This record gives sequence, structure tokens and C-alpha cells, in this order.
Amino acid sequence: MLGHDLLLSDAEELLNQHLMEVKQAELNRSYATLDFPPARNFIAVKDKIEASGVFKILEDMPKGAALHLHDVLLTSVKWVVQEISYWPDLYMCQDSEGHLFMKFMDTPDSSCAWQLVSELRAGYKDPKDFDRELHANLSLITENPDGLVTLLAESPDPSDINTVWTAFERGLIGISGMVMYRPAWESYLYRALEEFAKDSVLYLEFRGVLPPIYELNGTELSPIQSVGIYRDTTQRFVADNPNRFFGARYIYAPNRRQSEDTVWGYVDLMKQLKAEYPDFVAGFDLVGQEDLGYPLNNFLEPLLSLSSGNTSIPVFYHAGETAWMGMSTDENLIDALLLNASRIGHGYAITKHPRAKALAREKDVPIEVCPISNQVLKLVDDLRNHPAAGLMAEGFPVVVSCDGLSAWGATGLSHDFYEAFMALGGAKADLRFLKQLALNSIKYSSLDANATSQLRDMWQEKWDDWVTSFDLSPRLTLASSSTLATPTSATVPSTPAATGEVEANII
Amino acid sequence: MLGHDLLLSDAEELLNQHLMEVKQAELNRSYATLDFPPARNFIAVKDKIEASGVFKILEDMPKGAALHLHDVLLTSVKWVVQEISYWPDLYMCQDSEGHLFMKFMDTPDSSCAWQLVSELRAGYKDPKDFDRELHANLSLITENPDGLVTLLAESPDPSDINTVWTAFERGLIGISGMVMYRPAWESYLYRALEEFAKDSVLYLEFRGVLPPIYELNGTELSPIQSVGIYRDTTQRFVADNPNRFFGARYIYAPNRRQSEDTVWGYVDLMKQLKAEYPDFVAGFDLVGQEDLGYPLNNFLEPLLSLSSGNTSIPVFYHAGETAWMGMSTDENLIDALLLNASRIGHGYAITKHPRAKALAREKDVPIEVCPISNQVLKLVDDLRNHPAAGLMAEGFPVVVSCDGLSAWGATGLSHDFYEAFMALGGAKADLRFLKQLALNSIKYSSLDANATSQLRDMWQEKWDDWVTSFDLSPRLTLASSSTLATPTSATVPSTPAATGEVEANII
Ligand SMILES: [Zn+2]
Ligand SMILES: [Zn+2]
Repeated sequence: MLGHDLLLSDAEELLNQHLMEVKQAELNRSYATLDFPPARNFIAVKDKIEASGVFKILEDMPKGAALHLHDVLLTSVKWVVQEISYWPDLYMCQDSEGHLFMKFMDTPDSSCAWQLVSELRAGYKDPKDFDRELHANLSLITENPDGLVTLLAESPDPSDINTVWTAFERGLIGISGMVMYRPAWESYLYRALEEFAKDSVLYLEFRGVLPPIYELNGTELSPIQSVGIYRDTTQRFVADNPNRFFGARYIYAPNRRQSEDTVWGYVDLMKQLKAEYPDFVAGFDLVGQEDLGYPLNNFLEPLLSLSSGNTSIPVFYHAGETAWMGMSTDENLIDALLLNASRIGHGYAITKHPRAKALAREKDVPIEVCPISNQVLKLVDDLRNHPAAGLMAEGFPVVVSCDGLSAWGATGLSHDFYEAFMALGGAKADLRFLKQLALNSIKYSSLDANATSQLRDMWQEKWDDWVTSFDLSPRLTLASSSTLATPTSATVPSTPAATGEVEANII
Repeated sequence: MLGHDLLLSDAEELLNQHLMEVKQAELNRSYATLDFPPARNFIAVKDKIEASGVFKILEDMPKGAALHLHDVLLTSVKWVVQEISYWPDLYMCQDSEGHLFMKFMDTPDSSCAWQLVSELRAGYKDPKDFDRELHANLSLITENPDGLVTLLAESPDPSDINTVWTAFERGLIGISGMVMYRPAWESYLYRALEEFAKDSVLYLEFRGVLPPIYELNGTELSPIQSVGIYRDTTQRFVADNPNRFFGARYIYAPNRRQSEDTVWGYVDLMKQLKAEYPDFVAGFDLVGQEDLGYPLNNFLEPLLSLSSGNTSIPVFYHAGETAWMGMSTDENLIDALLLNASRIGHGYAITKHPRAKALAREKDVPIEVCPISNQVLKLVDDLRNHPAAGLMAEGFPVVVSCDGLSAWGATGLSHDFYEAFMALGGAKADLRFLKQLALNSIKYSSLDANATSQLRDMWQEKWDDWVTSFDLSPRLTLASSSTLATPTSATVPSTPAATGEVEANII
């Protein structure tokens, strides 16, 4: 079992006893009532999870690194709506197919029937109603008059994997258009780092398709310039929070549903990015719903060129994110390993491929397990049936991450750690399991040995602080140990919500 | 992968090509439409499965043995309603909690407000309406005016595991009371063997709680006498069908929710049964919803006595039939193995216990995988997520069986073989996978070496016949190769439905 060989200190043992008492009580209740949150769609049980004592402990626990994330799904949609959508010069437009486009412009162009968001909002009796609608369009979360429900949870309507992906990608278009405005992006990324820091995460590696960043007058930045903004914003946040946050790196991950020629273009750009920002750019991946995209072996020549000659660019392929077996998606796992992936994104299907599993273990290539993503995106309903439960019981290399977390209203790693701890680890998984997940997230980062060791030291110090300062007296809630830092970018306009707290519930 | 080392003959290769064309076409359609029957509750998609070309091939394929079955869930409920419930002297009664009791009596006793079934039925304008209601009460299948729907399938109402088990056990009470009438039981068991023979199954091992068999005047047979009737009925069917059927054995499997004293009583009876019918009685098990019953380690002394001194009674424990991890139910797996189980019933949780898994493999102890049962009884919705998919990919010892098949309207092994072939084996599983499942079912039977070899010879002959006579010309349906034999028991009264064909749909 993951973490079985860790030896806990006396202080850790005490904390562990408390943690396991809380966990056992919650499991016993679920066992008796059959009301077990990980068995139900996260969107429907988010409030229940956040009321859990285990969850509250996890929120404060130093969790290390989040290694599987996506650029425009990093930051809570609630904040985007309350903050970015209140900025001036934001237009929106819906095309005939219902796609929502959003864009900052000094003068609206003629590509769509643009309307000012501020004017649209002013047309509502209560601006909150507009904000609610916008929120629903930008995420997979929705509500009905009875409270929070969902498009997805146990609904009698078909909500199959393709429908969910369509809604998911529709939300991405709206968010992307809005946050790719340069000042919005600076603010969005800064806020993402803040939300992760607040959740006791020290370091991120996020993937992105690299949509062009634009200025108010429509000028588009080059890819090299855009990644420069990513890096500068990250450095600014680290400089503002030297004791709270270690840093972030970027994985260039364009869409896989492309021709080989286009992928050659991606690979060339990848090489330029790596040459320009060797410390900030970690490597390469391909993204998009895997079952409907093209498998890695469509692109062998360009992909092989990533590690030919004297270049050697690390790769972190999404592979095996599917419930199908023996189709191109799960067989991607084998190609990802043969292409020397440093980590596998999801690897959901790996238990059905014992040779790939053995190879990953032999090469110590972890799978990036994203429990909530797999559930919301319809691979598995009851997380107790997630194949990673067996893998973790075998001590297979894994990291737990949160994928497109803002789409389903998670913040940080705590929600996914909760699911892993309660459903994938089972009743016996204890503090050692959690500590090993944190250690794995550092060990399997793309950082070089020196930086990895610095990150581990920083995490260890925070871990020790957390263990020694942990209040073992009985209580129902834990006081938050950090407060939100205010963005310091000069480009962030002041808005009603700019200094608002992160709240647990959606608007 | 299960069957990977089998070498197919030329004739088998031809059949395999045809089989894989049909399978690939069905998978491609499902992949494109996302309408994949194994991903949905069996009760809701039974008709779709029966329309599948793959299913039609499987129906005729000699499948070997069904090793995980239960006494009063063997025979189609439709036949019970159309045949047994039309016999004279059958009474029914509902208690204040809605339990349905049924009993044959010459004079109704005073234990309940008994009413004659024939009179109740006569009170309906259309007797079919009565039969429909009775059918719904005796199985988990129900229908609404729009056609076949289900209590269970994607319903907005909670239909959790306990609710399903309650409905399941409620149906058992009604069936049991009716078929434990001696002539009814003789007819019921004979019919079960007929239904399996018709599905190209040669041999059964069925578990039972051994409810008392009774006569019309209320006399109850002793357990020894009752098992004698099981054996005699089996021998009669084999004598009537020497070229179609090999035989059956019985596993005494009383309920696990009992005191240790009661289990001592079970164990004593077990020893008597084994001494009386050494050839017919295979061994011992404990049954009932595992999460709500008691774990094996509550009963270590009586269970150990099964193999103490000069007795050595094989055991076939249900263990790990749960989605929970680290609770007593999945940890039963370890005790079942340490108690030298010959096979494990379900073993659903075994992938979460690598040491138990390694031990089972080392000792060559198979798990009895019952895909439809696990789905209908709420362990897993989408059978692609069934843990046996990974186990079969590793060549782990498994047999596929059908558990309480009549409760969900399956007949024989074909439905479960279909699910295993399409969902657990994935796109690449071919005739070798199916042949290995058949071979495993023979290899892991409780028969001694000599009988096993006779059964294998009989199966091999039927397999070779099937392969050589298989019509490879394009077609949509296969003609059935066998017709229903009529029961020859002198005690079976003649009824309107006595010679009715087995039909695919419920009434
Ligand atoms: Zn992803
Ligand atoms: Zn069973």
C-alpha cells in the first residue's frame, strides 16, 4: 500500500490517530447509510465533502505539487465571473450553435454580434442573475430552484461522455476568450497560484494549448511572448509569496485532433519554447478527448524528433483516459511509454494492460490520477471502482491531481486528495498514504535534482510545522491558516470583488 | 490475456474470423453511438443483448460448466409463473410487511390469511394481468406501460445496494415457498437443467441454503431426504439426456448472518451430507449480502473443523463481494484463501488486495466472476470498470458464472459470457478467450480427476461439432440446435404451459 514503509514520528502518530478517528467515524456512517460521497458525482456532493472533518484536515495539510492541470481551468469560475467579467470593455456574443464567445476590445470587431457585458448585466433587475447564468455557461456546474444540482449527477436524461465533453469544451471557449486578454490572463494566473497556495500546494505544472494572448486593440502576442507572460506572472507571485509558494512550470499541450503537418508545427514551436525558457517550460503533451482524437502513433515522426539529435524534451502524454479496452485510446498507453513519457496523464486503462503496467513500474513512470475528473467526465461513477485503488494497494507509482478542476468547482488538491483517501485508499489508508502522495508529487515533478531537493525541503518544513502545530483538541472546524494575498499587478483594475474571499459554494 | 496460449485449428480460425467481424462491427457501432449494452443495467438492455450477433453465436457455443448458482434462482421465473403457479392447491398470502408467501397445501394452515391462487387469478379479467404481477413480485424485473423497464436501471430514485438486496431476498421467499413443494421442486430443478442444457452448458454446481422440502399434507423432508431428491432429479435428467448433459453437484451454503452455534450445526449437517452423498455433494459455503452478514473469521472454529481429522470437505466461500475496501467483507478474501477455499465466490475486491491476489494465483484458486450479478446488485454500473477486466488481461484464474440469474431474467451462461467477452475482454478478446473460459469452467469444477476428464471429453466433442458445423455464410440469426425436452417425471401435472418454449422476453 502506498506509504506502507514510511515511519511516522511521535507527533505524526498522534495526528494520525486523530485523523483515523475522524475518518473511521465518517466511513462508519457511510457504511451504515450507504451515503458515501465518493460514490456520487462530485458536483452533487461537493458541499457534503466540504463539510467532512477529513476534508478540513486535508485542506491544511501541505500536499506538495499539482502536476496535472490545464491553463484555462485553473482558477475558480466564481472569481472569473465576479472579477474579470466586471472589467470594462468586455463583450460577449453567442453564435447560431449556442457557443458563447467573450472578448475584451476597445472597438468591437465584425466577427460576431458583440454586446457589452456591462450593458447586458445592467439589463437584469438583479446583476446576480446575470452572473449566475454566466457562471453556468462557463462551467459544468448549474443550479435549479431547489439548490445546487447538476447537468450530470444521477439524472434520468442521458448525459454520456460526449455530451459532457461538449459542455466542457463549450465552457472553455468562453473562459479562454475572456482570460486571454493580457491583463486578465496576468490576473487569472496570479489568482490560480493564490488559490493553490491557499490550499497548501507549493508547486504546479500546468498544461496549455497556448491560445494567443491579445491586447485591447486586438494585437496578438506571439507564442514566445505569451509564454513569457506566464513565466513573468509566476515569478511575480513567487516574489510576492516567497515563503508560501515554490513556483510553476508549463507543459505545452496542443490539441491531438490534428494532421501530422500541424503536429510538426507544434513540435517546432515546442523546441523554440524550450530553448527560450528552459527553466519554465517543462515539456510536451497532446490533449483533447482521447477517444475522439488521434492516437499518438499517428504522429510518431514528429514526436520522435522531440528527443533526437541533441534535444531531449520531456513528454507527459495523456494516455488511456478511457473505459474502452483494446481500442486506440488505451493502446496509447503503450506508445506513451515507448516514447519515454516522464509521466502518463490519467493512465486510467493501465490495469487492463499488464505489460504496460510492468513497464511503467520498471521505468518508475507514474500515472497522474485525477479522480474527480474521471468521475465528472464519465469514466466511472463510484470512485471505489476506480482502477487506481488497486494500483495504490500495490504501491504502483502514482500522483494525484485535479485536471480541469474549475469546471466542476474544486479548488486546489484537497477535493481530489479527499476522494483518493476515502475511496481509493480504503478504510486502512492513513497519514502515511497521504504523506506518500505528497512525496510522490515532488519526486515525480519535472524539476531537476537540485530544484526537487529545494522543493522537498520547503515542503518538509511546512509539513513539520503542520504536524507540530496541529490542534488535536476535539473540534468540528479548523481555522484557516492563511489569508488571501491581494494581487499586486499594476494592470488589475479595481472591482467590487477584487479582494473577495474564496468561498466554498458557487454563486 | 486469458486464452493467449491456445492454438486454434484451421476450422476454429475461420469461425474466429467470423466471430471477430461480428464483434468488431458491434463494438464500432457502440463506440460511435456510446450505446454499449454492458455499460447499462442488464435488466434495461436484455433485449438489445439478445439481438446481438455475438450473443447468438455464444448461445450455441459449448460453454462447459456453470459453477456459481443458487438453488431457487436457477429457473426462469416466467416458467415458474406459467407452469408451477397453475398447479392446483397453491395458496398465497401477504404479511403486513408486504412479504409474499406461497405454499402448496391440501388444507390451508392458520399461519397466514391464505387464498387460493387459482381463485385470485380467476378474479382478474385477464389472467395474464395476475401472472404479470406475480412475475414482478418474484423477480427484480418489472415493466411499465411503455415496455420493459426496471426498478433499478438509471432511475432518479435511489436504488442502492441494500434496496436491491431487499427486493432480491423478498423474491426468494415467494419462489422458495412455491418450489419447495416436492413435486414442484422436482419439476423446477429438472427444468433448470433443461434450460442450461439448451444454453449449451453441460454441468452445474449449485449452492443452496437447503430449505425443507414439503409434501401437500405439510410433512417436511429431512435435509438428507431433501438432498436425495436433488440428486435423484439430477440423475433422472442425465438419464433422459445422456448426450446433452453431464450432471450437477450441490454446495451446501446456508446464511452467514448466524451465531457461531448455528454455524456449528451447519457444519455437522455438512459432514452428514458429504458422508451420505459423496459424489453429489461438493462442499460448503456461506451466503447472504456479505456487507450485512458476518465475516468468515466469526466462525473460524466450526469452519476449521471442516478439514480436521480425516474429513476434508472442500469449501467455496463467497468473499469480497463488495465495493468497500479495508472493511470486513473484502478482508474475507484473505480468510477464504487461508481456509483453503477451492474457489472464491465473486472475489470482486481482490484487485485491492495484492497479497491475496498473489496467494490465489500461487494456489491456482479461481474467482467466480458473475458480471451481471455484480451490476444488478449495484457493485458496478459500467462493466468495463469491473475489476475482472484487468485480472483476465493478466491471465488470472477465473471462471464466469451467472449467480442468481433468474432474478434478472438471464438464462444459462450466454448473457454473462456476452458481458465478459464484450466488456471484460475488450476489443481484442477472441475465440481463444471464450474457449479458455469454457476450459477453466471444467478445470476448476469440484469433480475428481476422472470425472473432470470425462466432462472435458464430452465438452471437446461438442466443441468440435460446433466448430465444424458452424455455418459461416452471412446471416443474422442462428437456428437453435436443440429443442426442449419434456419433463418425464410422473409427478408433474399437465398444465397449459407445461410444454411451452423458453422465450426470450418476460411475460
Ligand atoms: Zn488533462
Ligand atoms: Zn452467489
